[in-house]
Amino acid sequence: MSTDTYVPTREDHFSFGLWTVGWQGVDVFGTAIRPPMPAERAVRKLAGIGAYGVNFHDNDVFDFGASEAERDKRIKAFRLALEETGLVVTTATTNLFSHPMFRDGGFTANDRDVRRFALAKVMRNLDLAAELGAKIYVCWGGRDGAESGAAKDVRAALDRCKEAYDILCQYVIDQGYSLRFALEPKPNEPRGDILLPTAGHALAFITELAHPELVGLNPEVGHEEMSGLNYAHGITQALWHGKLFHIDLNGQHGPRYDQDLRFGAGNARGAFWVVDALEAGGYDGPVHFDYKPPRTEDDAGVWASAAACMRNYLILRDKVRAFRADPEVAEALRAARVTDLSLPTLADGETWRDIRGFSPDTAALGERGMAFEHLDQLALEYLYGVR
Amino acid sequence: MSTDTYVPTREDHFSFGLWTVGWQGVDVFGTAIRPPMPAERAVRKLAGIGAYGVNFHDNDVFDFGASEAERDKRIKAFRLALEETGLVVTTATTNLFSHPMFRDGGFTANDRDVRRFALAKVMRNLDLAAELGAKIYVCWGGRDGAESGAAKDVRAALDRCKEAYDILCQYVIDQGYSLRFALEPKPNEPRGDILLPTAGHALAFITELAHPELVGLNPEVGHEEMSGLNYAHGITQALWHGKLFHIDLNGQHGPRYDQDLRFGAGNARGAFWVVDALEAGGYDGPVHFDYKPPRTEDDAGVWASAAACMRNYLILRDKVRAFRADPEVAEALRAARVTDLSLPTLADGETWRDIRGFSPDTAALGERGMAFEHLDQLALEYLYGVR
Amino acid sequence: MSTDTYVPTREDHFSFGLWTVGWQGVDVFGTAIRPPMPAERAVRKLAGIGAYGVNFHDNDVFDFGASEAERDKRIKAFRLALEETGLVVTTATTNLFSHPMFRDGGFTANDRDVRRFALAKVMRNLDLAAELGAKIYVCWGGRDGAESGAAKDVRAALDRCKEAYDILCQYVIDQGYSLRFALEPKPNEPRGDILLPTAGHALAFITELAHPELVGLNPEVGHEEMSGLNYAHGITQALWHGKLFHIDLNGQHGPRYDQDLRFGAGNARGAFWVVDALEAGGYDGPVHFDYKPPRTEDDAGVWASAAACMRNYLILRDKVRAFRADPEVAEALRAARVTDLSLPTLADGETWRDIRGFSPDTAALGERGMAFEHLDQLALEYLYGVR
Amino acid sequence: MSTDTYVPTREDHFSFGLWTVGWQGVDVFGTAIRPPMPAERAVRKLAGIGAYGVNFHDNDVFDFGASEAERDKRIKAFRLALEETGLVVTTATTNLFSHPMFRDGGFTANDRDVRRFALAKVMRNLDLAAELGAKIYVCWGGRDGAESGAAKDVRAALDRCKEAYDILCQYVIDQGYSLRFALEPKPNEPRGDILLPTAGHALAFITELAHPELVGLNPEVGHEEMSGLNYAHGITQALWHGKLFHIDLNGQHGPRYDQDLRFGAGNARGAFWVVDALEAGGYDGPVHFDYKPPRTEDDAGVWASAAACMRNYLILRDKVRAFRADPEVAEALRAARVTDLSLPTLADGETWRDIRGFSPDTAALGERGMAFEHLDQLALEYLYGVR
Repeated sequence: MSTDTYVPTREDHFSFGLWTVGWQGVDVFGTAIRPPMPAERAVRKLAGIGAYGVNFHDNDVFDFGASEAERDKRIKAFRLALEETGLVVTTATTNLFSHPMFRDGGFTANDRDVRRFALAKVMRNLDLAAELGAKIYVCWGGRDGAESGAAKDVRAALDRCKEAYDILCQYVIDQGYSLRFALEPKPNEPRGDILLPTAGHALAFITELAHPELVGLNPEVGHEEMSGLNYAHGITQALWHGKLFHIDLNGQHGPRYDQDLRFGAGNARGAFWVVDALEAGGYDGPVHFDYKPPRTEDDAGVWASAAACMRNYLILRDKVRAFRADPEVAEALRAARVTDLSLPTLADGETWRDIRGFSPDTAALGERGMAFEHLDQLALEYLYGVR
Repeated sequence: MSTDTYVPTREDHFSFGLWTVGWQGVDVFGTAIRPPMPAERAVRKLAGIGAYGVNFHDNDVFDFGASEAERDKRIKAFRLALEETGLVVTTATTNLFSHPMFRDGGFTANDRDVRRFALAKVMRNLDLAAELGAKIYVCWGGRDGAESGAAKDVRAALDRCKEAYDILCQYVIDQGYSLRFALEPKPNEPRGDILLPTAGHALAFITELAHPELVGLNPEVGHEEMSGLNYAHGITQALWHGKLFHIDLNGQHGPRYDQDLRFGAGNARGAFWVVDALEAGGYDGPVHFDYKPPRTEDDAGVWASAAACMRNYLILRDKVRAFRADPEVAEALRAARVTDLSLPTLADGETWRDIRGFSPDTAALGERGMAFEHLDQLALEYLYGVR
Repeated sequence: MSTDTYVPTREDHFSFGLWTVGWQGVDVFGTAIRPPMPAERAVRKLAGIGAYGVNFHDNDVFDFGASEAERDKRIKAFRLALEETGLVVTTATTNLFSHPMFRDGGFTANDRDVRRFALAKVMRNLDLAAELGAKIYVCWGGRDGAESGAAKDVRAALDRCKEAYDILCQYVIDQGYSLRFALEPKPNEPRGDILLPTAGHALAFITELAHPELVGLNPEVGHEEMSGLNYAHGITQALWHGKLFHIDLNGQHGPRYDQDLRFGAGNARGAFWVVDALEAGGYDGPVHFDYKPPRTEDDAGVWASAAACMRNYLILRDKVRAFRADPEVAEALRAARVTDLSLPTLADGETWRDIRGFSPDTAALGERGMAFEHLDQLALEYLYGVR
Repeated sequence: MSTDTYVPTREDHFSFGLWTVGWQGVDVFGTAIRPPMPAERAVRKLAGIGAYGVNFHDNDVFDFGASEAERDKRIKAFRLALEETGLVVTTATTNLFSHPMFRDGGFTANDRDVRRFALAKVMRNLDLAAELGAKIYVCWGGRDGAESGAAKDVRAALDRCKEAYDILCQYVIDQGYSLRFALEPKPNEPRGDILLPTAGHALAFITELAHPELVGLNPEVGHEEMSGLNYAHGITQALWHGKLFHIDLNGQHGPRYDQDLRFGAGNARGAFWVVDALEAGGYDGPVHFDYKPPRTEDDAGVWASAAACMRNYLILRDKVRAFRADPEVAEALRAARVTDLSLPTLADGETWRDIRGFSPDTAALGERGMAFEHLDQLALEYLYGVR
């Protein structure tokens, strides 16, 4: 098999956050190890390795507190690079977590002025996002949470969070933007517990909004796996609700700090099923990577890891498609009765009355093996590349 | 402070599952260490220690496959004990996980006959539940999940799960029962990953049902903490959605096997905030304990641990009420601007236009400390009993 | 690449515990789903799929409390199957956790009579182990731990644990057996916290024994990963201490219940590095699988999963060897300065005096990338089978 | 009970790292929220709230790369504050993780020059530590680890780690310093996996050193709990080996990012048993806090949280002492046979021969409950302050 198969094209719709390849490596224990990367450099380099689009926080392009002139200059340079490369702005988002004023969050900060400013900051960047053609606006409530029980009135926080999205949806409607919002859940870090900690909590929250049709999810592999949850299951439930608006692919090793490894590194088997879930669920949004080139890497390592994200997706997509096309797999799915689960439990026209007294041979049913191990081994051998 | 303060009364609405005090101690590594406990014994003993109600699986009262005569006899003995003691059946549920036929789940088993039988089994026990006066019917999909990616078509599983609840809601409506359903999420164990793994996922799922008004949640402390989630936050979100129909209190030490420790053991600080969340949220259902007397205990230890669950709740309730009534706490809440979070971000009559250009002194806002540590220390000192 | 490459031979030294393929599927939530499997059947079936050896608990062969006649009969049948098949008894161990008397552990049970009986039970099975030719005797202190702080005097427990191993080593010496002991650490389950919770704790403990040379480790993939630890790192440290006497291979998904998945399932990338660590470290003991065929499987699934354990090891061994032989990998290792780590920090003849004032260009050192991402991607592509 | 009871005195030997109260709040997602705190300010403030001692990294006092003059000036200011306040330097340590050159660790960096400089940096700070009277020198290998399997040759890393400690021990001996080293284990963060991840691994490592008598442990509550381990058990094993040279007290909520909460916050029940383990084990080193005032706090919050660490220790110490002095607890310990565990399993003069045929009434032993729930409830009621 030629490895040339795994060369990304724009049709693959791969996108990266500017903050990913631009991460300077600051963490709790150490200083920056790479210089700042201007947005235009990130765009040109990403175009060079085959990406289709980018996603940006306002302060990835210009600094918090930049003058209008500086802001314009930075946006102009960003836009020029986009035009030159043909890279698409698929998505945008707001930095509501780096400045000290956001120490207690943005939309649900206890300080009302912080909440008001957070909304203003989002609105201003929505204008830029719309202007640059973004279709999805991601919201990660980076510091909307608490370390201790009394510090946050969670019910009031949910009220304020709903208020924020209702205001922002109205803004988008009033401005005639074709943007939809995608909430990004995270359980903890940098706060002890974050509001809307999983894909499930965010999906439930959306149903209470004034414009639920404008709001969906942007689940991240690592964030769900930090809770020990199965990401493929999570995005499948989001798809089932019609709410998978965007995805953040990366890698993680279970409950620990947010690792943001490149896609494929981390839970390799999970990554196979993630691609399978996206293919099966008909997801057609950007295939977005939200990872961090490890702090060990220099600039060359940054681009090696970014390219590997895309390559690994393509490798896994090939494997998943071959797995699903294999007649032996089809037979194993039948043997495991996986296909039977698509049959409604009640036959057409039946009601509860037809099964109220259902009395099968329970002992016989109890003896039936599910043949899942054989099926799973077939999948694993596709991951290994030995089938 | 007299410890006599912490004596449970029926007004406290404490309830236990029959399977809790009746657990024989079978685990993956060992055999039963306590004899079977007939339902009537559990009822009488629970009444003796001050409980108000009980919750039962069908097969807590009679064995799977019991003859009609045996079933009637066992129910009669159970009912007699209820009548003698005045204990209330607050809740009932179905065992869809112990028999080998349920090895792949109940409502979402790949085998259609298993799904049909599971529904029949639930309907039959709904009749008994209604007859015995239960108001809540708990559903824990014990084995509805998978260890491997291809073994379960998660989208189809969600369809089948919805189908099951739609059928059961119709059954309850058609029979005129005043029962409502409470889903109990769990992330894993005994399956590798379980469907509807957290309170959030179940809340979202409910919104897709034909009769969402009949279905709410029964979150368990341990199940949410197995995912590293904050249980008090989870039940507060459930209350915010109007969906906290029931609770399962117990103890757990974070992500590991399902420990089912007595309430108060495990995450002691978390337990304080759980009681606070229930008090603040106006929860008025049964205060239900779903724990397991550790396998080290004999019969005396069973009742010591059951009594301690109630006692610990009362101790914590006292602490929580004193904390909330303390003027110094009120002052600390104000200093932390917790109370400000109840103020809408937009003033009455304002729209986004009023804040679109909001431009506060961000440096000044960035310097404001939140005073959360002082507030949290006050709470901790109530837990310690030194205030 | 022909998949026929991955056929186990006796030279591969694959072994299984009788309790693995013989697991009946009892868990906290459900009953047995497979019939008991006599030792002789397990032996014959394992021989048929290419295993080399077996490992047994006393009560895998005969029941606790079996009469002498019954015991002899069961051992005879076991031995006959061994002889017929040529399967080797590589290892033996003792069941000190299933009977109710072991509810608080064996060697460190608070009850002194339990401790005395536990030692007697081990001694009797050591005789059988020696007679059947086992070279390693595994000790897993299944219930040696506690759920609560005061229940166990940990210092006294360590004293008793040391006493137990000192007695057992003396027994082995006095009997002239060529057996060595291998401790199996586990952090929790079925106890809240287990003594000697990780490979590290057990390694340290061994240094305090009267005969440390007779005692080493049997680390299990899942047990270490339940603590979020890197198993390959753990066994490499054990090898560094000269203490990797045995291994238990299986699969796990991070901190949660003990999953005992087949080897390869679970943390697939981790499995690659486990095989690499064993190859690099010169481990030459049995390649032992301690997994549980999932409860979903019937007898066919049992053998499918057992065969897959061996097959996955062979697949991974091939990949690891190819990775280590690849000149591009060698170059990447050099670029990452991995090879430089084998150079002593002090040159031959140097002392601290030679580096006390060492003053390199720290800025230049700070700019050097490590090129780990490229190196890791090469490894991942071997896992994927695309190189 | 008067809260005045809980006022720290110098006899309590409370100490803090300069980096704790001096933490500026930089994390992966945000910038500094508090100004730098000169060492002399930290010393004066800590003295004011009742601390006994301090612990410092070299670069807590002066910046990396400071000129000799600047270094001297900063040390002088630090020393002056120490003299004025009488605060003791109990402990010192080296920053081998913040500068970009340490991106791959210090003692086990792949780059040999980094390793050599790391040792030189430690030696220079050992001189200062000795001069300032420190007795313990803590070593936390902050970045000694890896994110990926091939990046680190773990066996070589252990060799280099041993080499480093052998060199440093020789340095201390040759200089005549009365310093001992205390290794601080951590499982991960900021590296994917860190070498010597738990107290156990570090204890085992020490036994291989040239001067094991000079090296012990400095286990941190949060670091052990990040692996889901029981910290009280861990320090008790360290005490059993005679190796608990120092402790780092703080708070954590299980496997997740390193939270460094104030002592008492986090796992409150665990904190009770930690104090009990220190009291029971006769630990007489500094009672050291290694926490971070949350990023939500301003300067007032910093000192509120620091004072609370000490206060919580005193509250818990009172509780633990009362628990251990309570005759009802003594009776409960006897009922749980906890005291019997101190009896050797063999009576004086017995050998294995005396128990080889031990045949107790196993059924009777299997029926004995352990009465652990009653005992644990007594402890919990001391935590609650209701006894």
